[in-house]
Amino acid sequence: MSPYGLHRVVEPAGVLPQQAERLDADPKPWPDEVVVDVERLNLDAASFRQLSERYGSGDAVRAAVLEIVGRRGKMHNPVTGSGGMLLGTVREAGPESPLGLKPGDRIATLVSLTLTPLRITDELAGWDGKSEQVPCRGTAVLFGRSIAAVLPGDMPDHLALSVLDVCGAPALTDRVVRRDGDPSVLVLGGGGKSGSLSLAAARRAGASRVIALVPTEAEARAVEAVGLADEVVIADARDPVAVARAVDGQVSVTIVCVDVPGCEHGAVLATADGGTVVFFSMATSFSAAALGAEGLAADVEMIIGNGYVPGHAEFALELIRTEPGVRELFEARERQTSGA
Amino acid sequence: MSPYGLHRVVEPAGVLPQQAERLDADPKPWPDEVVVDVERLNLDAASFRQLSERYGSGDAVRAAVLEIVGRRGKMHNPVTGSGGMLLGTVREAGPESPLGLKPGDRIATLVSLTLTPLRITDELAGWDGKSEQVPCRGTAVLFGRSIAAVLPGDMPDHLALSVLDVCGAPALTDRVVRRDGDPSVLVLGGGGKSGSLSLAAARRAGASRVIALVPTEAEARAVEAVGLADEVVIADARDPVAVARAVDGQVSVTIVCVDVPGCEHGAVLATADGGTVVFFSMATSFSAAALGAEGLAADVEMIIGNGYVPGHAEFALELIRTEPGVRELFEARERQTSGA
Repeated sequence: MSPYGLHRVVEPAGVLPQQAERLDADPKPWPDEVVVDVERLNLDAASFRQLSERYGSGDAVRAAVLEIVGRRGKMHNPVTGSGGMLLGTVREAGPESPLGLKPGDRIATLVSLTLTPLRITDELAGWDGKSEQVPCRGTAVLFGRSIAAVLPGDMPDHLALSVLDVCGAPALTDRVVRRDGDPSVLVLGGGGKSGSLSLAAARRAGASRVIALVPTEAEARAVEAVGLADEVVIADARDPVAVARAVDGQVSVTIVCVDVPGCEHGAVLATADGGTVVFFSMATSFSAAALGAEGLAADVEMIIGNGYVPGHAEFALELIRTEPGVRELFEARERQTSGA
Repeated sequence: MSPYGLHRVVEPAGVLPQQAERLDADPKPWPDEVVVDVERLNLDAASFRQLSERYGSGDAVRAAVLEIVGRRGKMHNPVTGSGGMLLGTVREAGPESPLGLKPGDRIATLVSLTLTPLRITDELAGWDGKSEQVPCRGTAVLFGRSIAAVLPGDMPDHLALSVLDVCGAPALTDRVVRRDGDPSVLVLGGGGKSGSLSLAAARRAGASRVIALVPTEAEARAVEAVGLADEVVIADARDPVAVARAVDGQVSVTIVCVDVPGCEHGAVLATADGGTVVFFSMATSFSAAALGAEGLAADVEMIIGNGYVPGHAEFALELIRTEPGVRELFEARERQTSGA
């Protein structure tokens, strides 16, 4: 039995569940596992788009998802390599599970479907194949090292999931800011989801000064209105010289939450020697960061934003509960993306 | 005047020298600059390969390099985006230069040619266009923030350059190990250039146990013979489960010096919660590292290996002088690559 689920790998032997072609999705828990009754799958956006474009009709997309899960024992799109996450209710927790979950807990998984053993039992009868949100009956398995968050009863699911999606950022921001003492903190993309949570986390952790950098006047007004930053500046985060000018002086800690490529040099240039840059954007280029700092002779520590920090889900949910400004930005963003 | 050389950018206005289409290569130093008489350019391997494949004959390759430098004011290959470095002798140092260089110092630049103003005055008459090593007369400019190392008189140029090429790794290893106290340290790729320097740096910095992971029996014997590690283990660094098995337990600090893609998960799996992974390989994938750690619920800090740490050149040269084992591995590797 392995906390990483190696015992669930059917083939090829000896790889991690995420790399596996096929997992054993038997809904009988090993001693450190948890079995979940699935309620809904949220497919990764890239995966759903690929399936829709490839298969066209909703029926064909549904058949494709059933085929993948039937064959692989997990919803791991072989073309995009991505998965998604799921909602469900704990059915059974093995006696040695370290996750602290009990039967009846309603949870969201925070690890990818690409490594989660999954069995579908309703042929996805309740899904029309036309949305990433997949109503589903079946079972999933959590390993000793899996991560799941109990869904809070005091906020709508969609808000909780939206927060959980980016909950690594505020937790790591908290840690980095506390370690530094009372640093000045710049958040690139301070108006976004991970950005607004990071602003709130930085201030709570004792930052001496919190600066939000956003791309537009409208976003600047929104962030200013909720009072999450001491200062809001406007610049294109991809333009290093513009970022440095906007910030006017260097900060000790820079948090990168802008999900577009090319923000590495601006982040480095805005950070003082001895400072830290944390990259949360998946659009970050490793080599652009490494070579950029070298080319600027910048003695900054650059951290790859790890999506997992112990206690990250609870921490982020607590921020959304107690920081009305963060909740306001989240809800405004959801109204925007839902087109309302 | 800007320590980053913004005043040398001709077009487009307002970008950093590396992003510029064209730099002003006038060999008259601004107050914080240093002007160098160039002796040799070392073209980046990828750049030279592209030029050779595109232009064929040595004469045509030479003409292409002259055209690029004439037009851009720097040797910045527009196709590969890469440059290289140069050797030369300091001609003049501006009164406000912080680099500590004086006329007559023989130096190597440690910042890329892609951001170094360069003028060629001999039409590259001494170069046949058939090697990355380009004998060259001309001038280059170092900014306040540029990095250059004085070439040591007590070792051959080729050895010094080979060390300077990877000198960020041992310096950052030293810093991370000291910060941790007396951690156990694993070096993936411990038989290579940056790997062997990192092993030596880790031990000097007080690591309680130093493990080298290498891919082959032959390399294991070579590392064992020079005594740089307490333990040498053999595994494919791209196979996370194999890495974890080989290490048998987790370490506090893992240094990744293997220049092939796919080593992120093994590094994470080998590192204990609360530990640190430093990625020096340019083949590192940002997203594989971030998502890998999350998928394994690993609370490890992942650092992007910054090629610049103050004092890094002197530190690495000192290691090669005083650690016969490191020098032996370097020289063996050079004999290998030169085919001798």
